[in-house]
Formats: sequence, structure tokens, C-alpha cells
Amino acid sequence: MLTNEQVMQALSSVQDPELGRDLVSLNMIRDLVIQDGTISFTLYLTIPGCPLKDHMAKDAREALMKLPGVQQVHVTFGSMSEEERKQVLKSGQRALPKLNAMNRIERVLSVMSGKGGVGKSSVTAMLAVELAKRGQKVGILDADITGASIPKLFGLPAGGLRGGDLGILPAITPLGIRIVSSNLMLKEEDTTVAWRGPLIAGMIQKFWDDVLWGKLDTLLVDLPPGTSDATITVMQNLPIKGVMLVTTPQELAGLVVRKAAHLLNRLDVPILGIVENMSFFRCPACHEEYALFGPSHSQHLADDFSTQLVARLPVDPAIAELCDQGRVEEVHLPEIDTLVEKLITTPV
Amino acid sequence: MLTNEQVMQALSSVQDPELGRDLVSLNMIRDLVIQDGTISFTLYLTIPGCPLKDHMAKDAREALMKLPGVQQVHVTFGSMSEEERKQVLKSGQRALPKLNAMNRIERVLSVMSGKGGVGKSSVTAMLAVELAKRGQKVGILDADITGASIPKLFGLPAGGLRGGDLGILPAITPLGIRIVSSNLMLKEEDTTVAWRGPLIAGMIQKFWDDVLWGKLDTLLVDLPPGTSDATITVMQNLPIKGVMLVTTPQELAGLVVRKAAHLLNRLDVPILGIVENMSFFRCPACHEEYALFGPSHSQHLADDFSTQLVARLPVDPAIAELCDQGRVEEVHLPEIDTLVEKLITTPV
Repeated sequence: MLTNEQVMQALSSVQDPELGRDLVSLNMIRDLVIQDGTISFTLYLTIPGCPLKDHMAKDAREALMKLPGVQQVHVTFGSMSEEERKQVLKSGQRALPKLNAMNRIERVLSVMSGKGGVGKSSVTAMLAVELAKRGQKVGILDADITGASIPKLFGLPAGGLRGGDLGILPAITPLGIRIVSSNLMLKEEDTTVAWRGPLIAGMIQKFWDDVLWGKLDTLLVDLPPGTSDATITVMQNLPIKGVMLVTTPQELAGLVVRKAAHLLNRLDVPILGIVENMSFFRCPACHEEYALFGPSHSQHLADDFSTQLVARLPVDPAIAELCDQGRVEEVHLPEIDTLVEKLITTPV
Repeated sequence: MLTNEQVMQALSSVQDPELGRDLVSLNMIRDLVIQDGTISFTLYLTIPGCPLKDHMAKDAREALMKLPGVQQVHVTFGSMSEEERKQVLKSGQRALPKLNAMNRIERVLSVMSGKGGVGKSSVTAMLAVELAKRGQKVGILDADITGASIPKLFGLPAGGLRGGDLGILPAITPLGIRIVSSNLMLKEEDTTVAWRGPLIAGMIQKFWDDVLWGKLDTLLVDLPPGTSDATITVMQNLPIKGVMLVTTPQELAGLVVRKAAHLLNRLDVPILGIVENMSFFRCPACHEEYALFGPSHSQHLADDFSTQLVARLPVDPAIAELCDQGRVEEVHLPEIDTLVEKLITTPV
């Protein structure tokens, strides 16, 4: 048996696109009757002839038809008095149009590790650069709120985010990559962000809900180490289509990456492949290659999770220095090409 | 003017050591009178001749004398009826003796970075090993709940924590180092711990409150990357006497370490020094030294926070391999000696 609460809950997912708020919180749903498989109600409009009324009725109908046992939905229209209308618009959140309804993001991928310091952010940045060079429109959502490094890689100064009540405009790099990061919101890039989980989760949600990303081919989400609030929020609330896992050769790092991989399996998020960073160092004098962090355990990791070891990246002081100087767009690492090929050809 | 609430709040910090609960929640404080600078009350004992009564009265007196304007505290004793006693013991938390009241920890230090993957855990482990070799009793509290690596460094298997309702017994390494880590509580070491902040904070608190550390000269707290729940909880709730900051040469890492250092300054926690890890690689063939991650920015970091760059550690594949094999107690890195000297001689 369907309850009023179930119906109201379903309708609370339907927005008045102009006001940017849901029909329930706007007090637009009245005279609700549920009888057998039929739901009837009056949709009280804030303006009598609202041009969006059919659109809202359609959305409401669709939301309700998903409930078990619903066969028919009857919507009639009413309209609020001037007094009521004022009341409703004053109450609750500010009634802002959702500009980000214009966002068209083809696919959202994440770069993750579980482990810190393996080079998630550099890999994310290099991927974005290579995708942009191939003509894609790319964005980076830096979900590492307390340890944001993306802006520094691109030489973007603190305070580089624009926007206000209507939405946040990403910072844009010379190659046109759109970037949102907590560091862009700070006055000084080394200001501490000592936040507990709920604030972290809230900020990431804001980066998704309130940013005017526009049209993107690929949005890369750079996750912080760990499998706590940031990771859980991103995996649960963002439409992540696949994850590139970054590790280093050490089994010690692999152990923590495994924890992340298990989580992805549990959440049914596809692992696109594994990137091993800091795999070797080529001595500039004797040209010998050295496994700096001991023998690699990454192929084993890839096998265990039925995925591929897509690339092994060297340690290169010149690249480290370019990154430190905010010149990641000038880095060219041939191994990243393989990675991009893999990303582009994987259907997600 | 002192209020009843202030007095009760102060008394709520005083424990019945046998029951492991505070005097206020045990309803032991009655007939409270505050007059000028004199506080009088009756301490209702759960057992008439309780051998700990003078001990509790003394603790209560001490707590109250810290309040502004208090000159005298009069405590008289009463005792609960059998009925009352049952009621009180049944209510609230289980009344367990706090075995960890026996803990005597000389000093609690933390190894922190803000940044991930810089080698916090290896540095913590190597420090602990060197301290133990010099005869200290050492413990490690692994506060990296989602990315625990300490047990693996020491070759301790998952499931290695013992204990029950009365408290948790740390795992013990061959050198006698006592270790508590989330990974020791898991069945498999690579099981995901996907917890949001409050659970993380709760677990760390438990590692402090409920672990029978016994007598220790030094307890090292290994923090995860970031400045979120784990870090905030440790800094606010544990008596951290100083922090060793770990970084790598890259400015990109230094940026995030700065965020951590600012937080420590704000919380008035002394920075004992800075350890730069992965500073260079000595080519085994040509014996040339290479700055793998570009020029070092750590001295600048140390200067900015008026502290010392205490050690610069090399990248050494042999050490990485020993760590992977759980044989960190066999590692000997001469640079760690300097670090230990620094730790031992710094008065905290």
C-alpha cells in the first residue's frame, strides 16, 4: 500500500526549474488522493499561467510512475494567492535558478588510489592535459579538500574561483582545462583547511551541484588518499563511470590500494586500469634503470582485480620540477599517451 | 559568581577508578552548597566503606580548586542504598573497571605530514625501532584508520589484537614495540575500511582510551594524510607533546605540509623538526647522487616555521624491500640516529 509520505518523498525530487526548488518544499502539492493505483493532486503554481507547468507536471508524473503499483497520475492545476506566493518564496532556501542545469558532462571519471603521495594529482593533471591536446573539453574536480594540489600543478593562484550566488565559475588553464579546487577559494594557497568529514563532503557536493561546468567531454575527479568522507561522497553522489587506480611498486602501497579496489568492487564502479607511478629511475650518467622502490607488485594487483596494468611511469626530476613550477601543461610523458588511448577507447 | 553547573561540570571530570565512570553520572554528588569561596557536598559512595573514597575526594577537591575563586572544598561521605546502587550501576555505560588507568606514558609524540605517501609510517617505524634499540619502551598508535601500514612494516598479521571488554592489548613486535592499528582488527589486511569521519575519530579515541599500553617511554602517533577528522581528534584529545613533520623535496608536497604546520601553530603544538624523505638516490653503479624529485624546498619550509631540517633520508630500494617484507626492525639508516638524538634531547 502506497502512503502519502512515499508520494511526497518522490515529488520532493521534482524541481521547479525556474525557482530551483522542489515542488514539496514550495508547498505546490495539494489535495493529494491515493486510490488503488491512481494518484491525484493539484499542482499549485506560483504564477497562474506559468509556462513551465506542463514540464513540471510531466516530471512529477514520471517520478510517481516509478513507485510500485502506480498506474495513473492525475494532475490538475491551481494557483497560489499573491500572499501565499510571497510566503513560499521567502521561506527556506533562496530561490535561485539552477544555472548548472546547463551542464552537459559526457563522462565523469575518477583518479583514485586509497594511498597518498603516489601521484594521483600529477596523473590526473597529465591525463587532462593530454585529453585537452587531443581536442577534448576537460574539467578537473579536485576532491582533495585538505590537501589540494591541482591548482599548483597548473600554476593557478589562490583565490582564482569566480562566481557568486548563481554558481561557481571554474578557473581556466591556458589549455582551457576547467578547474575547481578548495585551494582556489583560499586567500593563500597554504592556508590550513582543517575540516571534519561533513564539511568535506558538503564542499565536494557543492563542487558538483553549484559549479557551472558547461559542456565537457570528460570531468576528472581527483580523490584524496583514504576511503573516508571524500571518497564515499564522490562514489555515492557523483555519476562516476570508471576509476583509474594509481599505485607505486611497493607492496606497502599496494596494500592500501587494494582497500580502495575492494570498495570499488563493492560499489560496482568499474576499474579502468592501474597506473604504476615512480616505477623506475633512469640514471642520466650510466643510463641504467633502477627500481627505486624495490620489485614491482602492481601486475599482481591488476590480476587480482581482473584489470590491466596500463602504464608504468618513471621518476623524472625534470617533470617534478615542471610540476613544482606550475608548468604541467608543458610535460610530455610518452606513457601518458597509452593511458589516454585506454581511457578514450574504454566504453563507459 | 560560581554556579552549580560549573561545579558539576568540573566534578564530571573526576572518575570512580573502580567503576570507570565519573562522579556526576554515577549520581554520587549530593547536597551541593556553594557559599563565598567554599564548596561543600556529600559524596555518596556505592559501597559504604569504599577503599577508594579518599582518593576520589582528593581528585574532586583538586578539580574544584582549579575553578576561579574557590578557597575551600568540604567533602563529607554518604552511601547509597542497595536499590540506588543497582539503579546507578545499571544506568548509562557498562560499569567496567578502567584497566588503562594503569597506563603510564612518559610522552606522546606524533609523526605527521598533511601530505600522503611521504613516508610518515616508515619514519615512524624506523624511529620506534631506533628508540627500542636504545632501551626505550615504545608504542605506536596507528591513527591512519583507512590506510593503515604500520602492521605490514613490522610483519604483524591481520587479526593480531587481543582483548575484550576490559581493554585492548597491543600487538608486540620482536623488539618489544607495542602496536595498535585498525589493520590488526581486520580479518584480512586488505579489507576496506570505508568510514566517515565520526567513526574514524571514534576509533582513534578508542585506541587511546581503551588500550592497555602499560608503561611507555614514548608513544608515537602515526597520522594519516590530510587535516580532517583523524588529525583534529588526535591534536584535540591526545596529549601530544610535539610533532615531527615529514615532507619530500617537492614544493608541491611542501605546500600541503605547510597547511599541517599552520594548523600545529594554531593549536600551539610544538614542531620538533622536519624530516625530508626521498631526498636523493645514490646510483649503485656510478655512485652519483640524484635529486629524484627536483631541487629541495625543505630548508625554506623549516625556516618559515622556525624549526630545523633534522634529517634528509635517501631513497633506497633495499630499505623499500625490507619494509615490504615486514622487516623494518632490520633496517639501519644512519640518518635516523640524528633524528632520535633530536627527539631524545628535545625537552617536551
